Amino acid sequence: MQRVYNFAAGPAALPLPVLEKVKEELLSYGQAGCSVMEMSHRSKSFQEIADRAETALRRLMGIGDDYAVLFLQGGASLQFSMLAMNLAARGDRADYALSGNFAEKAYEEGLRWCEANIAASTKEDSYKGVPELSAASLSEGSKYLHLTANNTIYGTMYPEIPKGLPAPLVCDMSSIILGREYDIKDFALIYAGAQKNLGPAGLTIVIIRRDMIRDDLEDSIPTMLRYRTFEKSGSMYNTPPCFSIYVAGLVFEWVESEGGVKEMERRNREKAALLYETIDASSLFAGTAASASRSIMNVCFTLPGEELTSEFLKFAGERGLCSIKGHRAVGGCRASIYNAMPLEGVKALADCMKEFETKKA
Amino acid sequence: MQRVYNFAAGPAALPLPVLEKVKEELLSYGQAGCSVMEMSHRSKSFQEIADRAETALRRLMGIGDDYAVLFLQGGASLQFSMLAMNLAARGDRADYALSGNFAEKAYEEGLRWCEANIAASTKEDSYKGVPELSAASLSEGSKYLHLTANNTIYGTMYPEIPKGLPAPLVCDMSSIILGREYDIKDFALIYAGAQKNLGPAGLTIVIIRRDMIRDDLEDSIPTMLRYRTFEKSGSMYNTPPCFSIYVAGLVFEWVESEGGVKEMERRNREKAALLYETIDASSLFAGTAASASRSIMNVCFTLPGEELTSEFLKFAGERGLCSIKGHRAVGGCRASIYNAMPLEGVKALADCMKEFETKKA
Repeated sequence: MQRVYNFAAGPAALPLPVLEKVKEELLSYGQAGCSVMEMSHRSKSFQEIADRAETALRRLMGIGDDYAVLFLQGGASLQFSMLAMNLAARGDRADYALSGNFAEKAYEEGLRWCEANIAASTKEDSYKGVPELSAASLSEGSKYLHLTANNTIYGTMYPEIPKGLPAPLVCDMSSIILGREYDIKDFALIYAGAQKNLGPAGLTIVIIRRDMIRDDLEDSIPTMLRYRTFEKSGSMYNTPPCFSIYVAGLVFEWVESEGGVKEMERRNREKAALLYETIDASSLFAGTAASASRSIMNVCFTLPGEELTSEFLKFAGERGLCSIKGHRAVGGCRASIYNAMPLEGVKALADCMKEFETKKA
Repeated sequence: MQRVYNFAAGPAALPLPVLEKVKEELLSYGQAGCSVMEMSHRSKSFQEIADRAETALRRLMGIGDDYAVLFLQGGASLQFSMLAMNLAARGDRADYALSGNFAEKAYEEGLRWCEANIAASTKEDSYKGVPELSAASLSEGSKYLHLTANNTIYGTMYPEIPKGLPAPLVCDMSSIILGREYDIKDFALIYAGAQKNLGPAGLTIVIIRRDMIRDDLEDSIPTMLRYRTFEKSGSMYNTPPCFSIYVAGLVFEWVESEGGVKEMERRNREKAALLYETIDASSLFAGTAASASRSIMNVCFTLPGEELTSEFLKFAGERGLCSIKGHRAVGGCRASIYNAMPLEGVKALADCMKEFETKKA
């Protein structure tokens, strides 16, 4: 079976050289005589794998020692609660910028724990863009401002991360981490599910400024939901998701070998521009995101009517362009073009869209 | 690099045919044109993988529809909290049988949430055996009795699961699930980290009798820590650990093809007997577990002194018998002989022990 161009939103395409390496090492890693999947997480071999992954991520994102890098489980969805429980005491205020489904979920989990406030929202506008944020919209004494850097479902992103706001910034970067350059110093906490731009599902990365890790947490908070637990143990309080860490480490090294995050961003902007140009020039396809908020990772577009949409998805599928169906919450089409999607795949999609439009004209 | 006999306690050896299948399908699964790691968890292909895994596990363990099978993350360590939060309200009583490190940790996390009571313990006896349990030792109105079926660190197991006790039984089966036959009807909840007998780390299996799933939980409990969340969504509230589910599914099918859990138990008893006989006949090696509580999954033994222990570990390592070092909490040696460890490996270890003893005589 030939490999397709996989535009899935997550789990998503991985770089082929990474998969080939994983395949090569599957029965026996290095001199270990066993698969990474079979290796004790307390072994020297695995410790080296984890250390290499962390070091590579630190280099790629310019993360200094004033930040801890944690390898966790549970996805961004568990972080929605964990971050609130770790950064706010009950009754504390925290602010949320609502820019999509996952931002809403983060807010809802925040509400379970603290006085979560909606500082800004584009919900009324069906999340077509990202909200404007200002110091005036934040709560007094806010423990953090939570935002979602890129909105996978709506295909939007913050063109720039807001700066100079009085609350520490907590950012869900699941769908854009390593996809464009950010200044780590702008954030108190960054988290990301691995399954979009970093590796297989089952690994969650948390990057937290060490001075944000509190120890005065309510007793009832589980050991496994405390950042300190993982910071103290090098993410090995219990068995970590070893294989996902290993694959993510290979992805980090692949990103470095390709020129780092700067080069990834250049490519992602080029890929996105090609699709947006195709959409803007079309009278059949229409973009759904507001121009100023267009994502460089998830390009969302529609065709008139469900029948035509299905027909296009089938047409694309026959050309090996797969998983372009939009999220079930919004319908339409979505091309996720994370780091592992080559320009050739995006060109093939743009050509396919043009061909389909010509056929329908 | 040749594969070794890997006696690691978890992550642990996987069946070679499973690894070979994973390798074969690594770049493209079936007709999907992508790796399982790259596949949307909402895709038909992945849903089939998850369904197959669940169905196979149900067949293997005789799990009826009155139980839900959940695929979670976070390991047994997160279950320590999750089970308490889901089965007990604050102030409710719950009982714990302490038979080792992990049982203690489960109890400690229980204490954060409810009135956790130690119903029985062998701690005073350095966990050399498992405790006796009786109705009289349970708290009045106890919401559950928690026990650890097999104690990885101490090499002990309950020879029989206690029956007829007034509290619903909650069981950590991490290191013995599918290793011997149990009657599912004896349990209200079974949980297991996958990385010992089921598959790669990062997947946690929960089997819960549906009538135990409560909805009247305290508001502050995170959505991601509610069993209902996963029961309602078929374990896909958010992205599950897809690749680990896939590999576990292959392991389940391998167990079936080898004759099911009954045959696994027969083999495990045979392997364990061979090692215990070697130990009992030796004047150099000594078993640490009380005879009546000896585990058929983790065989713990010591040599006189650390120097001799190191020498033996090196001697075994040179013969391709690896990861026999005991847990850092107790020292000595431990041979974990889960389902994937063939009799040949255990024979090689027994021979190696005899050879070492002769050499030292």
